[in-house]
Amino acid sequence: MRQSSSPSDGLFDGVLAAGPVHAATTDAAWVRALLDAEAALARAAARTGLATFADAAAVLTACAGLEVDPGALGAEAAATGTPVVPLVERIRAAVPGPAAALVHRGATSQDIMDTATMLVARRAVLALLADLGAAVDLTAELADRHRGTLMAGRTLLQQALPTTFGLVAAGWLTGLDAARRRLTEVRDHRLAAQLGGAAGTLAAYAPEAADGPEAAAAGPEAAAAGPETAAGPEAAAGPEASAGPEASAGPESAARPEADLGVLMLAAFSAELGLAEPDLPWHTERTRIADLAGALGSAAGAIAKVARDLILLAQTEVGEVAEGGDGGGSSTLPHKHNPVRAISAAAAAAQAPGLVATLLAAMPHEHQRAAGNWHAEWQPLRSLLRSTGSAAFQLRAALDGLRVDTGRMRANLDLTRGALLAERVAGALRPALGSEAHAVVAGAVARGDLAGDPAITAHLGPDRLAGLFDPAGYTGSAGALIDRALRAARR
Amino acid sequence: MRQSSSPSDGLFDGVLAAGPVHAATTDAAWVRALLDAEAALARAAARTGLATFADAAAVLTACAGLEVDPGALGAEAAATGTPVVPLVERIRAAVPGPAAALVHRGATSQDIMDTATMLVARRAVLALLADLGAAVDLTAELADRHRGTLMAGRTLLQQALPTTFGLVAAGWLTGLDAARRRLTEVRDHRLAAQLGGAAGTLAAYAPEAADGPEAAAAGPEAAAAGPETAAGPEAAAGPEASAGPEASAGPESAARPEADLGVLMLAAFSAELGLAEPDLPWHTERTRIADLAGALGSAAGAIAKVARDLILLAQTEVGEVAEGGDGGGSSTLPHKHNPVRAISAAAAAAQAPGLVATLLAAMPHEHQRAAGNWHAEWQPLRSLLRSTGSAAFQLRAALDGLRVDTGRMRANLDLTRGALLAERVAGALRPALGSEAHAVVAGAVARGDLAGDPAITAHLGPDRLAGLFDPAGYTGSAGALIDRALRAARR
Amino acid sequence: MRQSSSPSDGLFDGVLAAGPVHAATTDAAWVRALLDAEAALARAAARTGLATFADAAAVLTACAGLEVDPGALGAEAAATGTPVVPLVERIRAAVPGPAAALVHRGATSQDIMDTATMLVARRAVLALLADLGAAVDLTAELADRHRGTLMAGRTLLQQALPTTFGLVAAGWLTGLDAARRRLTEVRDHRLAAQLGGAAGTLAAYAPEAADGPEAAAAGPEAAAAGPETAAGPEAAAGPEASAGPEASAGPESAARPEADLGVLMLAAFSAELGLAEPDLPWHTERTRIADLAGALGSAAGAIAKVARDLILLAQTEVGEVAEGGDGGGSSTLPHKHNPVRAISAAAAAAQAPGLVATLLAAMPHEHQRAAGNWHAEWQPLRSLLRSTGSAAFQLRAALDGLRVDTGRMRANLDLTRGALLAERVAGALRPALGSEAHAVVAGAVARGDLAGDPAITAHLGPDRLAGLFDPAGYTGSAGALIDRALRAARR
Amino acid sequence: MRQSSSPSDGLFDGVLAAGPVHAATTDAAWVRALLDAEAALARAAARTGLATFADAAAVLTACAGLEVDPGALGAEAAATGTPVVPLVERIRAAVPGPAAALVHRGATSQDIMDTATMLVARRAVLALLADLGAAVDLTAELADRHRGTLMAGRTLLQQALPTTFGLVAAGWLTGLDAARRRLTEVRDHRLAAQLGGAAGTLAAYAPEAADGPEAAAAGPEAAAAGPETAAGPEAAAGPEASAGPEASAGPESAARPEADLGVLMLAAFSAELGLAEPDLPWHTERTRIADLAGALGSAAGAIAKVARDLILLAQTEVGEVAEGGDGGGSSTLPHKHNPVRAISAAAAAAQAPGLVATLLAAMPHEHQRAAGNWHAEWQPLRSLLRSTGSAAFQLRAALDGLRVDTGRMRANLDLTRGALLAERVAGALRPALGSEAHAVVAGAVARGDLAGDPAITAHLGPDRLAGLFDPAGYTGSAGALIDRALRAARR
Repeated sequence: MRQSSSPSDGLFDGVLAAGPVHAATTDAAWVRALLDAEAALARAAARTGLATFADAAAVLTACAGLEVDPGALGAEAAATGTPVVPLVERIRAAVPGPAAALVHRGATSQDIMDTATMLVARRAVLALLADLGAAVDLTAELADRHRGTLMAGRTLLQQALPTTFGLVAAGWLTGLDAARRRLTEVRDHRLAAQLGGAAGTLAAYAPEAADGPEAAAAGPEAAAAGPETAAGPEAAAGPEASAGPEASAGPESAARPEADLGVLMLAAFSAELGLAEPDLPWHTERTRIADLAGALGSAAGAIAKVARDLILLAQTEVGEVAEGGDGGGSSTLPHKHNPVRAISAAAAAAQAPGLVATLLAAMPHEHQRAAGNWHAEWQPLRSLLRSTGSAAFQLRAALDGLRVDTGRMRANLDLTRGALLAERVAGALRPALGSEAHAVVAGAVARGDLAGDPAITAHLGPDRLAGLFDPAGYTGSAGALIDRALRAARR
Repeated sequence: MRQSSSPSDGLFDGVLAAGPVHAATTDAAWVRALLDAEAALARAAARTGLATFADAAAVLTACAGLEVDPGALGAEAAATGTPVVPLVERIRAAVPGPAAALVHRGATSQDIMDTATMLVARRAVLALLADLGAAVDLTAELADRHRGTLMAGRTLLQQALPTTFGLVAAGWLTGLDAARRRLTEVRDHRLAAQLGGAAGTLAAYAPEAADGPEAAAAGPEAAAAGPETAAGPEAAAGPEASAGPEASAGPESAARPEADLGVLMLAAFSAELGLAEPDLPWHTERTRIADLAGALGSAAGAIAKVARDLILLAQTEVGEVAEGGDGGGSSTLPHKHNPVRAISAAAAAAQAPGLVATLLAAMPHEHQRAAGNWHAEWQPLRSLLRSTGSAAFQLRAALDGLRVDTGRMRANLDLTRGALLAERVAGALRPALGSEAHAVVAGAVARGDLAGDPAITAHLGPDRLAGLFDPAGYTGSAGALIDRALRAARR
Repeated sequence: MRQSSSPSDGLFDGVLAAGPVHAATTDAAWVRALLDAEAALARAAARTGLATFADAAAVLTACAGLEVDPGALGAEAAATGTPVVPLVERIRAAVPGPAAALVHRGATSQDIMDTATMLVARRAVLALLADLGAAVDLTAELADRHRGTLMAGRTLLQQALPTTFGLVAAGWLTGLDAARRRLTEVRDHRLAAQLGGAAGTLAAYAPEAADGPEAAAAGPEAAAAGPETAAGPEAAAGPEASAGPEASAGPESAARPEADLGVLMLAAFSAELGLAEPDLPWHTERTRIADLAGALGSAAGAIAKVARDLILLAQTEVGEVAEGGDGGGSSTLPHKHNPVRAISAAAAAAQAPGLVATLLAAMPHEHQRAAGNWHAEWQPLRSLLRSTGSAAFQLRAALDGLRVDTGRMRANLDLTRGALLAERVAGALRPALGSEAHAVVAGAVARGDLAGDPAITAHLGPDRLAGLFDPAGYTGSAGALIDRALRAARR
Repeated sequence: MRQSSSPSDGLFDGVLAAGPVHAATTDAAWVRALLDAEAALARAAARTGLATFADAAAVLTACAGLEVDPGALGAEAAATGTPVVPLVERIRAAVPGPAAALVHRGATSQDIMDTATMLVARRAVLALLADLGAAVDLTAELADRHRGTLMAGRTLLQQALPTTFGLVAAGWLTGLDAARRRLTEVRDHRLAAQLGGAAGTLAAYAPEAADGPEAAAAGPEAAAAGPETAAGPEAAAGPEASAGPEASAGPESAARPEADLGVLMLAAFSAELGLAEPDLPWHTERTRIADLAGALGSAAGAIAKVARDLILLAQTEVGEVAEGGDGGGSSTLPHKHNPVRAISAAAAAAQAPGLVATLLAAMPHEHQRAAGNWHAEWQPLRSLLRSTGSAAFQLRAALDGLRVDTGRMRANLDLTRGALLAERVAGALRPALGSEAHAVVAGAVARGDLAGDPAITAHLGPDRLAGLFDPAGYTGSAGALIDRALRAARR
């Protein structure tokens, strides 16, 4: 049984940052991802022959065991503008002996931060997709179960024509499913590792840099093995590289003839983390962030549409659905049963458009590293993951156990005493009245007696009229459309 | 030869709505698309057996010949909230005889408007992709030509390490190419026809609605042929359905066993227009709009990044690039040569984030038709297509004939008298000095004499130092990365 | 009699850019304002002694008579990034003799463009305030007339407690009135002239620049009169300077002892146009634009709140209000009466948040003139003025002739058979039941028989209960609050 | 001495949520404000005669002493959508005896939450204004000190004309000062208490509700004193009501003849907290939030403009300013000195536009309480306060101790060897050459030898030319404008 509310750590989080995405996006989760990135960098160096596996193991052990206070890290980050600088100091201090020199080898702060962000994003999107998928299933179930449940179709918030609740739910389904598919694509193909070094040239890994720290630090073993060995198949395509369910994307460049050490590092680093391998460092090429933002924004909108409908259908005067469970009470009003889940989903989803705009507006990163627009991404991306995740979680909860009042649906459909079938009656009159039919029917509707209007009964007999006024006979392709939506969601 | 400025019809359009996307998104273009949609609807009815081909031909002829004043249409739209209502009146008046009853048969205003919007979007995106593709080619050419051109890599607007202009251009290339690929995907798979009728049930096409207008209006021929015939293979899969270069997407539902007339109409209508066939009407499921918006927003950001770099590189104090052509002069300052193309591109691209946010915020469409959020999409979607298209056009113009001052690039690289190689020198000192190396080098940099500092020359001889100070030896994987980017863009 | 729809010139404008603000923000209006600015500049030069009044008159005549095609101007603007450059060429060509040299004297393109934008903004805000003021009056009338009209107060779209329609309308009133007040403040104090010259120093007006064109161009009369004379009281404080109803703001700097020619020009130019006189040129200090944007965004939100309520109250299942007039019909559904005015208002208002964000994001203008962020303001500011103006116009139309169905209000209030008074009944039970009262009442509500529940009737007699269930007795301070709102609006 | 970095509690907060605003906006601060609101409500009830002062004191004591875990509160808030419900339970449990019934008397959750938000906003704005005021002072100092420091004025990132660093700083000053003034206005007049009860009618305080809990709970003392007594002068205008430095706004309605108990409660509650007294409850009238958002967005933009300029001036190739202090180092690049304060300010300020858009888009609150748009305000308002506050803090730090390299300013001015004075030379040639002057000068500039061009020297002698080429003689009204800016800031 799914818990009715997630653990949260903030005053607003129970409402607006609920569900599993919250845990995936905490400061602690980010620090964990930063440490994962540094550990993977050390392992990649070993696999590429730039370091010994023993040194890499020492770095891994330090990263695995390090306890870091995110707040302290954040405070120290003020001096340089990035928490990676104080984190690297901590890791180096935790690695015994000369292996400390392997820590952060050849990387720049943004390499680690961007890679961690992608790890966090992947984990958060996975959690989000679980809730979104559950919501898809719940709407599919509603679409199937209520394929014959008549209700009023409403346009511009006015009753318009009969439809079925099944088709309404199928419409919800297609939106949520489209959002799920796009998010899955982005997760698989656009969440990439980042590695470029200070200017994006990977210069610190180049052989000509062997004058420098790398050769010395790698020690005799690496020198013996040499980069040629490191360029062997296991470096780029070994079992670890492609292992894991997340490595679905694969390197973007299928063929890789070159034996460039920097490029080998990029490949090995990506493979270690199961993230897509970018063709180039993307320090200031932010379409990956934009694509993720766009997919999340679209998902938030698809969720908000369903939430809005639930809230409207739950109005006192409509009363066609109600949320299950015990929530929604009021401290002062004993009779109230608010659709609090749908409301929370709508409120969380409403954060998305502005956050997407912030991320898009931050795209013009200057030269080889941005002077502010990179930092400007951190908070809105986290908030966007959280808000969209919370919206998915709350919508799932709203749909789970949703009470559908089919009697009220039918009663509302009959509120207008046939006026909803006016289009159909006008159609039936057209052979006799031609283009006057619309006006005749409109007049009868205005007088409130469509069924008894003499101008109509003169042309249509009682049986014919009774048939025309049966909404069950005017739901068109609703059934066929539901089937299409269900089939598509299963693809 | 490409024209240096596009025809435009507004005071700000030469700067902010330049290039071919403008013409694709004018009022006249929208009206043309609305007429195309009405014509396709009539043809689809004929192919589905709901009307005669003769009647459909009469509608087509009327739509093709109709002269419509968009302003008058817009003014009349105020009464109902949609320009389709007065347009349908005009078409009906232009169709002689009973075929007038076929006009707009079974459709709702939003069916026609959404379909027209998708047609406009497809045409605008095609125009945009031409300019974006040209910009991709121009950056690829720069990347290849300047693979050996040394320049200062700049982070946080400070010189950091050497790089090559080729690699910088390759970075531009990957962003523009990613934007192009995503826009192409959206064009092929997400731009769909819209058809659902007033409540999205396609009820007016259903056999049970044959009591009504359709059977009568279709006349004896259709009755003779009957819907069964219409459900034959040519209706859904005839040569016309799949013809045309734009039908690349194909119907979303591969298998279509049903013989539901409404669904057949949906398929035929989509095929007529070469738009993707949706599984369901999407009157209030707006992820297609959101996906288009997201792709445009991402493209605008990718363009803005390049424009920003060009503007920064063209600064008087940097002077590494200048726009070709005669533009950029000043009315008062004879010495100025402003990068007016890049500036115009940046300004146009800056419109995108807010417009994307507006479109995302409008996603929660109520019930079966929104009470405002649908209308709220029209202007921002047009503006977003135009702004992004104009940004692409202006960037292409800025890149075309860009003057690259390789001498100035080298001179700027030498401005700091070796400090840019400080990382490398520190690396070379590390075997001797260990973790003190960083501080020793930082001190020497602060004193402004890195090459002559005794604490350094004590460990590194003159030849070694000369080699370390040669930026050409410290560009790492730049060449390999350029190759990757060029290969990827050709995929 | 208010016209039912404004003239508009675009396909979407009848719905989304309706009312008088449209005409105030067309290309033609902008060109007119640009010409007004150039004419005022010439007059200011004459008043400051930098030119002859004869030459100024020649410029004025040319500006007044010039016919300019905005589209042609826009196309030519592409080369320099501003339409002022080709406009100045046209004016110079239209001024006979040496007076042509006075045209644009000492100004930069942005001086003229920003000033014109402020003129357009003032005219548009005036038009907007007329509609907003009318909407304020209409809500005040509703508040007063319906102070005794009972209706259900709704929270989270659930009926909560009784209220009066008068208080609901008073709430609308306070929002619209607050928006009106803020917009008036901005109009009076923040819409300022712009004059600084190319680098914001007003250098071209300085005496040391008298080596240059000014002295020569000003001719013998100016030389005879001299700048000293021009610095006399009439230049800065003459009757023309303070004349006109628009000059309500007055110069920002009360005391102006200095006789600096540039500053005198700034004062004279501002006074000529009746715009506020800025302390400094504000080429790259954009808080004026931001304040205008914020006020418009706030107004759009206040309007959207009322529109949203009207749409919800007009729902088929609620039916408490309906728009008057003939609009809102449907092409296919004879029975529909959509609240098309309120919907159009909501759709127009929904443009505002994204446009405000674009304007705020464009605020960081570089150095003395921005490289793109200035151009990025033009379109969103125009769209924001138009959208907010259209929203005000449509809301006014929706309120004007609004049909209020007080019977339906009362019927809806009785839908829950007393549950709405549950809070009150719980209060009455509390002396007897203490903290159990809430639960007892909640149970009775759940069983649907609040009035007959034995646990309640045991403590409250029939008369007492009847009194408690009379909603008229539980509207609290509604009347007093309405009075406060009406009084405040009249202040 | 100001601390170089503020305590922070999150990973990104040292960079993006630095300074005193952070502490004013934590969860703990919000809980404190919620408790303050509940305490003030009890005191207001006592002052209005609806409760005893003894009971009010019991509530105050409980509120003052309560330790609340915001995370636990947030988690419990999920069930009802507001943390006030579980908080009220905690307070009631902490109040001994029947005084517990006074807790939250007559209020609805939103009354308390909105009031707390306003308290938090006031405290945060006060902190922000301190940093903003300091930044104003620092720019004023720069403007005054550098009134004679020549530098290049730059337009579109090209050198244009000479200006002074003093005038540049004066431009910064006017933007920051305008933002400060507007924020002060909003703080004083728009931050209001909220009190309306469940439907905004204040019904629970009405005499007719005396059947209910209030009379009973108030007990004999209150009954003895009676509401008439409570309506005496001390209730609305007693020393406590107007005491305190924060009560600068005063009640919005000056005259208050009515003795309506609900209205008296509203007045007393506002006075207790020193917040403005609203004319009406504003549960769904959100212009106050919008005005606060607009003022913060404008302030963020004014800050970002200065930050952007600092970053650009600090470029390696420009080098005219550098941040003081030890920050800005790089982990890998020993020579770097990044303007990390300005960059952090820019990044924080970049959050604002999207957050403002979110708050504006949430303005249409339905009916008497919104179904989602209220909850949607919480996070973005907090983030906006924090981001703008952090931007102000970081900008102040960047300006404090800013190193100005006046030599580099002059050197850059001379880079173009006189071309910057081209406008002036053209002016001097115009008497001789007329409209040809511009072209002659442009040609000379293009040939790179403005001073020696024969077409120029033919008309202007060496002395004249030397004078014309002295930038100190072409800074126009810079000094006078600086004086105006300084005077205006002192007003």
